[in-house]
Amino acid sequence: MTPLSLNHRALTVADQIAADALRLRVDVSLIGGARVIDCGASAAGGLEAGRLMAEASMAGLGSVSIGVTRVTGDEGPAVVVRTDHPVAACMAAQYAGWEVKAGGYFAMGSGPMRAAAGREELFATIGHTEQAEACLGLLETDQPPTAEVCAEIAHKCGVPVDKLTLLYAPTNSTAGSLQVVARSIETALHKLHELGFDLSRVASAWGVAPLPPVAGDTLSGIGRTNDAILYGGQAVLHVRGDDESLAAIAPRLPSGASPDHGRPFAEVFAAYDHDFYQIDKLLFSPARATLVNLDTGRSHSAGDFCPDVLRQSFGLA
Amino acid sequence: MTPLSLNHRALTVADQIAADALRLRVDVSLIGGARVIDCGASAAGGLEAGRLMAEASMAGLGSVSIGVTRVTGDEGPAVVVRTDHPVAACMAAQYAGWEVKAGGYFAMGSGPMRAAAGREELFATIGHTEQAEACLGLLETDQPPTAEVCAEIAHKCGVPVDKLTLLYAPTNSTAGSLQVVARSIETALHKLHELGFDLSRVASAWGVAPLPPVAGDTLSGIGRTNDAILYGGQAVLHVRGDDESLAAIAPRLPSGASPDHGRPFAEVFAAYDHDFYQIDKLLFSPARATLVNLDTGRSHSAGDFCPDVLRQSFGLA
Amino acid sequence: MTPLSLNHRALTVADQIAADALRLRVDVSLIGGARVIDCGASAAGGLEAGRLMAEASMAGLGSVSIGVTRVTGDEGPAVVVRTDHPVAACMAAQYAGWEVKAGGYFAMGSGPMRAAAGREELFATIGHTEQAEACLGLLETDQPPTAEVCAEIAHKCGVPVDKLTLLYAPTNSTAGSLQVVARSIETALHKLHELGFDLSRVASAWGVAPLPPVAGDTLSGIGRTNDAILYGGQAVLHVRGDDESLAAIAPRLPSGASPDHGRPFAEVFAAYDHDFYQIDKLLFSPARATLVNLDTGRSHSAGDFCPDVLRQSFGLA
Repeated sequence: MTPLSLNHRALTVADQIAADALRLRVDVSLIGGARVIDCGASAAGGLEAGRLMAEASMAGLGSVSIGVTRVTGDEGPAVVVRTDHPVAACMAAQYAGWEVKAGGYFAMGSGPMRAAAGREELFATIGHTEQAEACLGLLETDQPPTAEVCAEIAHKCGVPVDKLTLLYAPTNSTAGSLQVVARSIETALHKLHELGFDLSRVASAWGVAPLPPVAGDTLSGIGRTNDAILYGGQAVLHVRGDDESLAAIAPRLPSGASPDHGRPFAEVFAAYDHDFYQIDKLLFSPARATLVNLDTGRSHSAGDFCPDVLRQSFGLA
Repeated sequence: MTPLSLNHRALTVADQIAADALRLRVDVSLIGGARVIDCGASAAGGLEAGRLMAEASMAGLGSVSIGVTRVTGDEGPAVVVRTDHPVAACMAAQYAGWEVKAGGYFAMGSGPMRAAAGREELFATIGHTEQAEACLGLLETDQPPTAEVCAEIAHKCGVPVDKLTLLYAPTNSTAGSLQVVARSIETALHKLHELGFDLSRVASAWGVAPLPPVAGDTLSGIGRTNDAILYGGQAVLHVRGDDESLAAIAPRLPSGASPDHGRPFAEVFAAYDHDFYQIDKLLFSPARATLVNLDTGRSHSAGDFCPDVLRQSFGLA
Repeated sequence: MTPLSLNHRALTVADQIAADALRLRVDVSLIGGARVIDCGASAAGGLEAGRLMAEASMAGLGSVSIGVTRVTGDEGPAVVVRTDHPVAACMAAQYAGWEVKAGGYFAMGSGPMRAAAGREELFATIGHTEQAEACLGLLETDQPPTAEVCAEIAHKCGVPVDKLTLLYAPTNSTAGSLQVVARSIETALHKLHELGFDLSRVASAWGVAPLPPVAGDTLSGIGRTNDAILYGGQAVLHVRGDDESLAAIAPRLPSGASPDHGRPFAEVFAAYDHDFYQIDKLLFSPARATLVNLDTGRSHSAGDFCPDVLRQSFGLA
């Protein structure tokens, strides 16, 4: 089987971003030899920069667009995502599974560089690791990576540092917010994985979540973007196999199945002293999920939107 | 007048599909010399393969996207279509007017190969036949065409078999389902034609229908994709001419004008022993249709959505 | 700072239009040496011609798509717009601030040719004037510009007439109607400017308005396209700075803040003897507007949709 070349496809998107830096309002620089693109920290960035970041994070194997939703009660912008390579695009690439730490630097890392590093336990189950000649990663942060950080990432990916491209933006920027809200499918898949579901059964997926007002600080940005998924997101997954397992897992899939569900994420986060690892892992999934069985045509849906929590979180009148 | 070259434009889309086979998860092979692309039978295909199949079926003269609708009661995916060449794109190309039969093989055939063959009575009225150097067709089936089938199609189109490209997928696949649901405009036009309306009056069109859960078998796939149009589809047609004829025809245009309207298509189909030709031809059109008169600015709308029938057909809770 | 080259970017879109004239159903001709593209007067034009006209009018710095809205009460087509260069795209280019008059000819002029001419008072405040080697403008009219008109525009832009491209279409055509309805963001910005707001605070924007049925005459076309914005449009603007000024200005921003608000625009227009300059300038803005403060994360929303006025104006049952 010909490999999908996740990093190669993602770099095609990154090259587009770099070539159109003026329109996208991103800043391209070299840090320790790596190409680093600021999409929303010191650079203004914007909606299109965020949309392309999201497509890069999915290794060019998904489509991200800005549509219209009424899930908050009023019509407003939504991030619509789809992919025919859900495991490769969302789990091997988009999932923020790499905690990038070096010196005092910290950022959540995502993108197909993770598949090149292949160090996360996840890959033992899902496959899709790859040897890449050049790598692309995303960092959720308002600080540019240091030369040391770039060197370490490149080393872990097995590429020279001048073959590494990093895109970064904080959650409380237009682009950084959009690329997190593009994770409606990814969170559903990750939750299924946590529940022990065989992800290779998932063939295609479509998802949507409301684009929240950009937050003023990181904590509130994390809150709103998570709420967009947890209380306003939905994912429709095309899967194969038996219906019994789907009927059993569907009610457990949406965020509402977690005891931490029901209040804005910022409150939950604070209640656990801002330690992600204390929060119920099973909270992270869309408000509503549908499993469509391609083999039998049966649909298994569960979960409800929470417009009230969304409006409270988003600060809407 | 310069010809639109329907087959040439459709082949540009088909070449894109073939060039991106890995991402689209389609299989390209040669059968009896023809290029045959499996978009959802043995190949996995997917949403993007279906979207491109639909654009190819419209001879590259329409735009097909996946948006959001609430027509079933909840927000979910929709297939949105538009064209500024409604008769060429939908009637001369997209309409499944060619019953492809040879040996024991049977499939509904669509795409601009029909305009090259020019054998259907329809073309006497609508025009748009063409002499093509190479042809493109779609087959709604889970079986690849045989070499005999390819030879016969090429012969009828007046092209050597190695200048024929066929895309195929069954209705109960992700791509095959999507490309049928992309027919909201086409069914409205065909119904108008059946009602004796002069289609050359139609200048542009926009349509939408909900994307149903992919069905588990062909019969159920035919049922759901038809229901998506009949009970959840709408078309807005920009037309020219007098308002009297529009006011008279508008109430007859939506599916609700047919006595067969009101229950899932699978039931209707079964009641007629699965013989398409027994079903009231005037059933096949969107739930709601609007004729916008470009000459007078008057709109003529009729028809209502049936969320209950949709939910029953789609197997939604 | 590298200039955005508004005219250069717009001409890239115009070149696409000219190269695809057959599909877009536009007519390209030379008038007095200028390239003039009829997108909906004698030419049929269409939805895609209108979409591209709108992107050209925004100097290639915005994205225009056709989505789905329920703002009239039923699902129907909507024009969705976004930009990460709101002031350049909408104010320096898209705003119809140039009254083109010569001999007996009159048309509202828009597009980046205005930034090359730089004669409007507006530019003293917003900047973005430019010296261009070639220019692009739009004319809202059903009459092609005369050679005299082309010469005068070219002269005012400081380019030879053979470096001028003009796109034109009347408001009561498919393309002409769409490109006006693509002004949800522009009207919000212009209103903010009238209210004395510093537009350089606006970083990105997203907007949507329902696409009305094309009108049968110019006056009714002006009525419906304005109503689409005034009673069905919304804009979400990402801004920077203090919240006090936003809280103070938000309630004044939507169209509802004007005493002329509440009845179809055609009636308002008639009441002022069809003299635009008599109408309250503060009427022209979307029904609903949201200011998202990127610095604090606070949202300031105001305004309500008026489905009844929309349905009356659009002639919907």
